[in-house]
Amino acid sequence: MAGAPQLDGFFSQVDTLAPKFIERLAAAVAIPSISAEDARRPDVIRMAHFLEKELKGLGAEVELRELGKQHGKDNLDLPPVVLARYGNDKNKRTILVYGHYDVQPAEKSDGWNTEPFELTVAEDGKMLGRGSTDDKGPVLGWLNAIEAHQKAGIEFPVNLLMCFEGMEEYGSDGLDDLIFAEKDKFFAGADAVCISDNYWLGTEKPCLTYGLRGCNYYNVEVSGPGADLHSGVFGGTAQEPMTDLVRILASLVDTDGKIQIPGIAEQVAPVTPEEESLYEKISFTMENLHDSLGSKTTIFEDKKPTLMARWRYPSLSVHGIEGAFSAPGAKTVIPAKVIGKFSIRTVPDMDIDTTNAAVERYVREQFARLGSKNTLSVYPQHTGKWWVASPKHWNFGAAAKAVERVWGVEPDYTREGGSIPVTLSFEQATGKNVLLLPMGSSTDGAHSINEKLDRRNYVEGIKLLGAYLHYVAVEPTE
Amino acid sequence: MAGAPQLDGFFSQVDTLAPKFIERLAAAVAIPSISAEDARRPDVIRMAHFLEKELKGLGAEVELRELGKQHGKDNLDLPPVVLARYGNDKNKRTILVYGHYDVQPAEKSDGWNTEPFELTVAEDGKMLGRGSTDDKGPVLGWLNAIEAHQKAGIEFPVNLLMCFEGMEEYGSDGLDDLIFAEKDKFFAGADAVCISDNYWLGTEKPCLTYGLRGCNYYNVEVSGPGADLHSGVFGGTAQEPMTDLVRILASLVDTDGKIQIPGIAEQVAPVTPEEESLYEKISFTMENLHDSLGSKTTIFEDKKPTLMARWRYPSLSVHGIEGAFSAPGAKTVIPAKVIGKFSIRTVPDMDIDTTNAAVERYVREQFARLGSKNTLSVYPQHTGKWWVASPKHWNFGAAAKAVERVWGVEPDYTREGGSIPVTLSFEQATGKNVLLLPMGSSTDGAHSINEKLDRRNYVEGIKLLGAYLHYVAVEPTE
Repeated sequence: MAGAPQLDGFFSQVDTLAPKFIERLAAAVAIPSISAEDARRPDVIRMAHFLEKELKGLGAEVELRELGKQHGKDNLDLPPVVLARYGNDKNKRTILVYGHYDVQPAEKSDGWNTEPFELTVAEDGKMLGRGSTDDKGPVLGWLNAIEAHQKAGIEFPVNLLMCFEGMEEYGSDGLDDLIFAEKDKFFAGADAVCISDNYWLGTEKPCLTYGLRGCNYYNVEVSGPGADLHSGVFGGTAQEPMTDLVRILASLVDTDGKIQIPGIAEQVAPVTPEEESLYEKISFTMENLHDSLGSKTTIFEDKKPTLMARWRYPSLSVHGIEGAFSAPGAKTVIPAKVIGKFSIRTVPDMDIDTTNAAVERYVREQFARLGSKNTLSVYPQHTGKWWVASPKHWNFGAAAKAVERVWGVEPDYTREGGSIPVTLSFEQATGKNVLLLPMGSSTDGAHSINEKLDRRNYVEGIKLLGAYLHYVAVEPTE
Repeated sequence: MAGAPQLDGFFSQVDTLAPKFIERLAAAVAIPSISAEDARRPDVIRMAHFLEKELKGLGAEVELRELGKQHGKDNLDLPPVVLARYGNDKNKRTILVYGHYDVQPAEKSDGWNTEPFELTVAEDGKMLGRGSTDDKGPVLGWLNAIEAHQKAGIEFPVNLLMCFEGMEEYGSDGLDDLIFAEKDKFFAGADAVCISDNYWLGTEKPCLTYGLRGCNYYNVEVSGPGADLHSGVFGGTAQEPMTDLVRILASLVDTDGKIQIPGIAEQVAPVTPEEESLYEKISFTMENLHDSLGSKTTIFEDKKPTLMARWRYPSLSVHGIEGAFSAPGAKTVIPAKVIGKFSIRTVPDMDIDTTNAAVERYVREQFARLGSKNTLSVYPQHTGKWWVASPKHWNFGAAAKAVERVWGVEPDYTREGGSIPVTLSFEQATGKNVLLLPMGSSTDGAHSINEKLDRRNYVEGIKLLGAYLHYVAVEPTE
């Protein structure tokens, strides 16, 4: 990769400072900022103050933006959003980056090999700890890139707007309102957006991510009796809500993942000839999938249909049932009211309302066929649209150059099967291109026990984020 | 009802002592002997000592029989079985009675209108309190009958063997072993068995119960991935265990309760002409069922098929799923291993092994049809045989006379849809006829909030138990 010779000095400075950057990550991991647990809220807030202090130490302007009380919990303050600006030069482009400083729950007793809130660097370079890869490593990556520029005496190439939230792992409560409220204020002037909060498709090949599936999550309630019943007394004489519910849930999708609801597949954008050729080039094997799945119980035997199923086709998963017996052991209950939970991952060109209507119509039809006296209710619990950006945008072009410069390979262009709702919010609020630029790899186990970030991915990832800023500062827009 | 003039004195003594007997029940209800809660174990044991003291005060020989540690809990002592004998006259018949002194869990916050462990006698005669009807009222009924005989100076008509356990509400852990170990010792010489631990079919008509359904409880496990998965990442590419499980559960039974498993209905004993005529005479209405169901979501519109479905046909209920998402809210998990729970209530002439084999074969066939790569396991979690006694036995004949004498009506002869495994154990261990002689009525809410025993049912029930002993003492055996 030609150009940007100043990066050499930046890179060697990152290598020099690597031990310090790992210490910074260790300090962040040591704060158990678990957003899902009310009792940990002070730790989440402490983590915001940690970032504030680090950012101010680097000379950034920082503001902790309060979001009020948590939805449905009048006594629980939401953690603040950390808004920071580094640089305010009218002659430079302004890049907005997002990350989150909260983490998933973790207890050693869940099966961790190490203390989850002590960053443990193993001999093979694995840096184990909750939040190491999701998302404290990438968040600190931006800070580390600033520091390495300062220490190397290299001019920072852009104005950097940073937005770090503390509720990502628990629904990003309050964030959307802030994004739209600040679109013409704090976020005004952003030329492009970059989010580092996802993962490589495998372990060796960096990627740029330009698409996410949406998610419509549904509840199907069936109720009948006034209270839970004893199956000895009432079995055979009462119509049981569970009998109806499992029949409805069984009608939604088959073992091979084929959605049985009319009006879903019809909305899916056709595969273009250009797209057809994309998949074979992607660095991904069925062995990768078997490894991450922990089994060979895949629907497809080959890479291409597998990637297409994950990225560009909808899927339907049945998650569980609320109100039924769910504990170990035996209980002879006839549950009076049961709520089935399922979700559909959505893709272009699926429409949320059209999909909701198709689901409701189909579920009502299935229930009507049962001839049941029980009562049915079906409704979306939450919905979120899919997102697809243009990977030909200059924002992606700059990132591709950075990948080549740091990793020596062209990146794969990938989509994700999951959903990161904030991506679409930033795109809609700023009207700018959003790039997903992952630091970690597919084996990091973001929400699992023994979450880790490889030392190599962290150090080279810091270089990548810095290099991206250099290229995006000058990338031609047409 | 002719004969047994001495009962008049006994009855009037019961009326005289009624306030004292209610105090005795209040003292028993005040001990929260909840067998399902480890922390309440000292209270369960305290309840055993309460019974021991009361029984000794009446001159009975009492032994607290220890059963060792609770299954799977090496630090938790089982409560003792209270074995007591009142009378040892070779010229009298010996009657064995069973009851239990433990109770279901209860918290005021569950929705009780009164403190659950303070017996509250309302103006309408309802005596509210946990254990009032299940089963402390009936257990104390036997003690009260002894005391009323003593106070009235009337000779007790039989030798009474009493067996009161403290784990009935939690699986009767250890009881079966004791019953079979004592069959030729403590229980030797019993001429008949009487259990007062069930309920009238309605609220006005006493009944004698001669049948119970059995219960085979099954687990169906489907597993695939090595760990729970994220539906965004894996939805559409992995075969999901929940998809398979809900399809299997949906294949078991239909909305109208028809079991879809071949080989079940084939085992059911045919309806005899004699049986055909039984149901219309039973005091039971669909309104009774609607009241107890809290809805009109019944399978049948008429009494006869409803009673037959409850008493003499098998039923299948799906209770729930272990391992799936079961909390309120939304979670986009693909569960790696899910265990469906269902049970079949069994009736004559169903065989446990034949039924297990039919279930396993059918579930395996249904799973095979799915063409899934997931792994299936199906097995019975516990099984218990149905029980039907002859209502023409002299034990029932004596009880019928007692009902007529106390209540002035012929009893209904009923069966129950539920299972009381100890009934069959006593029948098998002693080889004697077992009679179920209920004290409470259908509205008592044995396992619900606001459990009650009507004052009338308690006082007349004490008379009934005493009268039964007088009639059974002399009832011709042929």
